[in-house]
Amino acid sequence: MAQAISIFDTTLRDGTQGEGISLSADDKLKIAQKLDALGVHYIEGGNPGSNSKDIEFFQRAKNLRLNAKLTAFGSTRRKNSLAEHDTSLIRIVESGVPAATLVGKSWDFHVHTALQTTLEENLAMIYDSFAFLKRSGVEAIYDAEHFFDGYKHNPEYALAALRSAQDAGADWLVLCDTNGGTLPSEIHEIVSRVRSELTAPIGIHTHNDCELAVANTLAAVQAGARQVQGTINGYGERCGNANLCSIIPNLQLKMNYPCLSPEQLQSLTSTARYISEIANATMPVGQPFVGNAAFAHKGGIHVSAIMKDSKTYEHIQPQLVGNKQRILVSELAGQSNIISKAQELGLDINANNDKTKQIMEQIKELEHQGYQYEGADASLELLLRDAFGETKAVFTLDSFKMIMEKSAGQMNAEAIVKVNVDGQSVYTAAEGNGPVNALDNALRKALVQFFPNINAIHLTDYKVRVIDEKDATAAKVRVLMESTDFTSSWSTVGVSSNVIEASWEALVDSFRYALLKMDKVEPAQDEPRERFGLVNH
Amino acid sequence: MAQAISIFDTTLRDGTQGEGISLSADDKLKIAQKLDALGVHYIEGGNPGSNSKDIEFFQRAKNLRLNAKLTAFGSTRRKNSLAEHDTSLIRIVESGVPAATLVGKSWDFHVHTALQTTLEENLAMIYDSFAFLKRSGVEAIYDAEHFFDGYKHNPEYALAALRSAQDAGADWLVLCDTNGGTLPSEIHEIVSRVRSELTAPIGIHTHNDCELAVANTLAAVQAGARQVQGTINGYGERCGNANLCSIIPNLQLKMNYPCLSPEQLQSLTSTARYISEIANATMPVGQPFVGNAAFAHKGGIHVSAIMKDSKTYEHIQPQLVGNKQRILVSELAGQSNIISKAQELGLDINANNDKTKQIMEQIKELEHQGYQYEGADASLELLLRDAFGETKAVFTLDSFKMIMEKSAGQMNAEAIVKVNVDGQSVYTAAEGNGPVNALDNALRKALVQFFPNINAIHLTDYKVRVIDEKDATAAKVRVLMESTDFTSSWSTVGVSSNVIEASWEALVDSFRYALLKMDKVEPAQDEPRERFGLVNH
Repeated sequence: MAQAISIFDTTLRDGTQGEGISLSADDKLKIAQKLDALGVHYIEGGNPGSNSKDIEFFQRAKNLRLNAKLTAFGSTRRKNSLAEHDTSLIRIVESGVPAATLVGKSWDFHVHTALQTTLEENLAMIYDSFAFLKRSGVEAIYDAEHFFDGYKHNPEYALAALRSAQDAGADWLVLCDTNGGTLPSEIHEIVSRVRSELTAPIGIHTHNDCELAVANTLAAVQAGARQVQGTINGYGERCGNANLCSIIPNLQLKMNYPCLSPEQLQSLTSTARYISEIANATMPVGQPFVGNAAFAHKGGIHVSAIMKDSKTYEHIQPQLVGNKQRILVSELAGQSNIISKAQELGLDINANNDKTKQIMEQIKELEHQGYQYEGADASLELLLRDAFGETKAVFTLDSFKMIMEKSAGQMNAEAIVKVNVDGQSVYTAAEGNGPVNALDNALRKALVQFFPNINAIHLTDYKVRVIDEKDATAAKVRVLMESTDFTSSWSTVGVSSNVIEASWEALVDSFRYALLKMDKVEPAQDEPRERFGLVNH
Repeated sequence: MAQAISIFDTTLRDGTQGEGISLSADDKLKIAQKLDALGVHYIEGGNPGSNSKDIEFFQRAKNLRLNAKLTAFGSTRRKNSLAEHDTSLIRIVESGVPAATLVGKSWDFHVHTALQTTLEENLAMIYDSFAFLKRSGVEAIYDAEHFFDGYKHNPEYALAALRSAQDAGADWLVLCDTNGGTLPSEIHEIVSRVRSELTAPIGIHTHNDCELAVANTLAAVQAGARQVQGTINGYGERCGNANLCSIIPNLQLKMNYPCLSPEQLQSLTSTARYISEIANATMPVGQPFVGNAAFAHKGGIHVSAIMKDSKTYEHIQPQLVGNKQRILVSELAGQSNIISKAQELGLDINANNDKTKQIMEQIKELEHQGYQYEGADASLELLLRDAFGETKAVFTLDSFKMIMEKSAGQMNAEAIVKVNVDGQSVYTAAEGNGPVNALDNALRKALVQFFPNINAIHLTDYKVRVIDEKDATAAKVRVLMESTDFTSSWSTVGVSSNVIEASWEALVDSFRYALLKMDKVEPAQDEPRERFGLVNH
């Protein structure tokens, strides 16, 4: 078996350079845990020297107990100064990470044009910065910016930059195709030359400007690179970074380089989809390996051959990367996932009984309508427990009404809710900062007298996505909500052409899920019901 | 200069196998003309033997006077029959096309499993079908299905299939990586072997299941292939076909193979965007070469270097493919991004004057409130033009009111809008599928009498994200909207604790931006204003 490859994920750093990708510290912590479960070896978290959000992230990430090496990013020291005095380098060391990446110039043109210093000073900047990191006990990775362009213009200087880092003790020399303009044949030739000239392990960092980032990464590995840098779903500046979701299965399944365990590889699809939800970035349906259509067959000759032997039109078994075959005429929506979820809940489900078939039909229909349960565990659990009669209707909605007005710069939102709790009709009204907050407040008012603990529940995230993009404001939207009671958190989903109705669905699921785990109390007789609402009857 | 490459476009045939891609005969005629103007050499229009829509297309396409060779698609003859009696082959000849592609098996496993015939009969099917086409005076292209998989399992049989076509007079032998599972190094080796064994010109047809379709095509050309088959924007089954929008500039600009004239190459971006509109398929913002973010710069360091010399972070000049540089504004970027955006708009801005400082302060404050301009070019342009007094208030809002009701399973949304257009107060009401759609409808009603072209505007995407996640339904949300008038598209942003107010802001910016570029007309006097709304005063 070939030598193992180190997977270096920079979704949280270079990935956030992508247009439309913006992650909070909370988002970053969630993604870091997911990447760790996937089994990547390095997680580059951000730049503690450049912004306070990243300092907060590194502070809080210490509690995550990651198996992966959390990595901080920065640059080589400023020109004409000392590494020991460089605030950015000091912050990296202070962040307490086991590994750090420093980007530094290797193209003479950039040294003159962007840095505006001498070629010698740039080599000193590299040497000093890596020597400083190594004295501080940090694993040190040199991202040689524009290495391939630099090599093509001045190979000796590009190699000298690598040699400076190597001489200072850098653990990895990562060759970057920063502008994404290099071809695989050039990558192979240049990496081979570097391997013959230097002794430190080589890494590769490519961008997708020519739609060649994956191929360039593979070419570098074939020439001897042993670390690959990239992002989940290929997020990154301009056309994106090299897409780890394609690189990892290519290396492992096609080229026999071990990267992850087979079980970890099977979580690739769910990881990619989870991160696209957190980043609120639509995943292309045809994304290789992990996309919804990656193993979808559209009828005719292909389908009939696929039914005879799926190898006829599939280059790998979709299960290897946690994806599934879809035959558009007879789709079974993730049956095994659902069965395993139900079994985890202790429900009596298996592929053969009628109840299972009925639930599958129901889920298929709901997914067809736009529901998606991958990011909505609590809604799926409610749906399964409902089917097994394990829940009761704690409350039912009679009606709600929303009134919003914007006038003279003022915006008001009011909700009026009529619900039935255990046979009692409760009618409440509330204001809110916005329509969903007003509904939340009104529903809480109606329920708190029966379930006083309900005020411990807070919604922590709220996302809306258009499902059918053909006509955006008339199309259906999917709302994903995340809630917490401070000891656990859960996610729910709602779908409608009306964003308020979809939000209501997700909100109701969130309260229902929380109430499943709470005890109902009788409201005290001496406490007037009016305290909780406008009218009770 | 290297030998020219024939570009074979199959957007209208293999491209329509992509999930969600469906083209009418009218759509196909429009796209064929656009492809012809781009300068591709072959336009595969469809399969006249399989459906009447394609027969209609070929009939009507005769009037287009295309420079490209219009090409029909079909299969080799049925097993155990005569080519002369094969309806599908007869229809191809009858369609009057100058060239035709026939797909035929070259993998022994497929001959047994899918065709269920003998290896000898498959060779005869190939020979007879190509001999028939050549007798009919048609240029004949053999798409050797699953050639690379076939070659890996049984190289002699795969080569024998090619030899059958060559012996019958086929003009091109096109090697297909039908399942998309082959690596560039394998492609190079196998194409080289084929070149040494056969004399007919070689073509290459790849799929993107490993995210390697472009690299595989380039590897084949480096090994001697002289025809490349692919689709615009990489449309196609599963993960798509090889993307001509990346292949053509790579071949022509990086590898010096002439494909199109320089002027034709400059129409690549507009061609890609036009076809994505016709196909109603959203283009990934980061699509290489032709995407909206392909030359967009977000990082502060990148931007300040780009302003010194754009070669620092651009692998080619965007103008060569008809795209353009964009500077994104974001938390990661400094002031240089905004200055260069303003300069792009022709506004008199520089780092030192007071107006610039004032605008920077304003943008900083807005970003602090949660606005984000990197995904909202149009809102940023309005903000900058407003600051320079280059816009006027086309319309102002007096008030709006929303009423929503859910009762007995029914959900209704109504909006009442009062706006002032050029001193005239207009009062309209409308229903909608949801609140934003209702507001959109009501505002459109108010404006259409002054700006009839406004109905050409459609919203194409709508995204909501919570900014401060501490208490999701009471927190602020950011709405991003994308709109189009079919010739261009633009993005706008709104922020509020109320999702409806934030949507309203983004909607107003979208209409304001569109109206900046439209002429106002006076409403006809004999047309009662009531037609457009409930009340006017």
